[in-house]
Amino acid sequence: LSYPCGRHIIAELYQCNPLILNDLSSIQGILIEAAVQAGAEVRDFAFKKLSPSRLCGVMIISESHLAIHTFADLRYASLDIYTFSQRINPDEAYYYIANQLQASWSLVKELLRGYGEIQEKLLDY
Amino acid sequence: LSYPCGRHIIAELYQCNPLILNDLSSIQGILIEAAVQAGAEVRDFAFKKLSPSRLCGVMIISESHLAIHTFADLRYASLDIYTFSQRINPDEAYYYIANQLQASWSLVKELLRGYGEIQEKLLDY
Repeated sequence: LSYPCGRHIIAELYQCNPLILNDLSSIQGILIEAAVQAGAEVRDFAFKKLSPSRLCGVMIISESHLAIHTFADLRYASLDIYTFSQRINPDEAYYYIANQLQASWSLVKELLRGYGEIQEKLLDY
Repeated sequence: LSYPCGRHIIAELYQCNPLILNDLSSIQGILIEAAVQAGAEVRDFAFKKLSPSRLCGVMIISESHLAIHTFADLRYASLDIYTFSQRINPDEAYYYIANQLQASWSLVKELLRGYGEIQEKLLDY
């Protein structure tokens, strides 16, 4: 019995472009394209404006999910990219999204999930 | 300018009830009720069967999201509960879901997200 090993990229993106952060269709388009860039297939998604300057998007991709919270007033976005499939490269999705949001700097962590201890590595993104 | 401080609970749930793990409407109902238990409002969601024994669900709740991946063949579920609102208690959602899935044991981490370093604390759940 082999347990899955998931890669979970957790990123804080700072000094992004607030106009993009606050545009629901842009955010949705960027996440869809990020999934494609990572080699994943989009299965379903939900995007909502939660307040005048805050959006949330969640997306099911093949054996994985993406989630984003944007705070246009703070030029900040919080991003999760999670995949259990070896075929999918979450780094590609991360770089695509950070670039599209025009983030000036970011903090990124990767957790390895699945069986046993939740492992962690700090990455040099 | 005060940056948001998000609480992100990351949990691996082991030796769950596989019949529940593989039932899409049960998983959806459990996540909706978990959001209610945590004091959150459900805004939108997506749930999908990705393979015969694997489901994924993502849910936007007020200023937050929930995400779950279930692997019925392994009796394992991977859970994320993320909130930026002080009004919402993600612990309540965690306990409710772990109990409903009949998890025998679990590993839980909490990340504090938002401005500055991604902080981490290991919890004694």
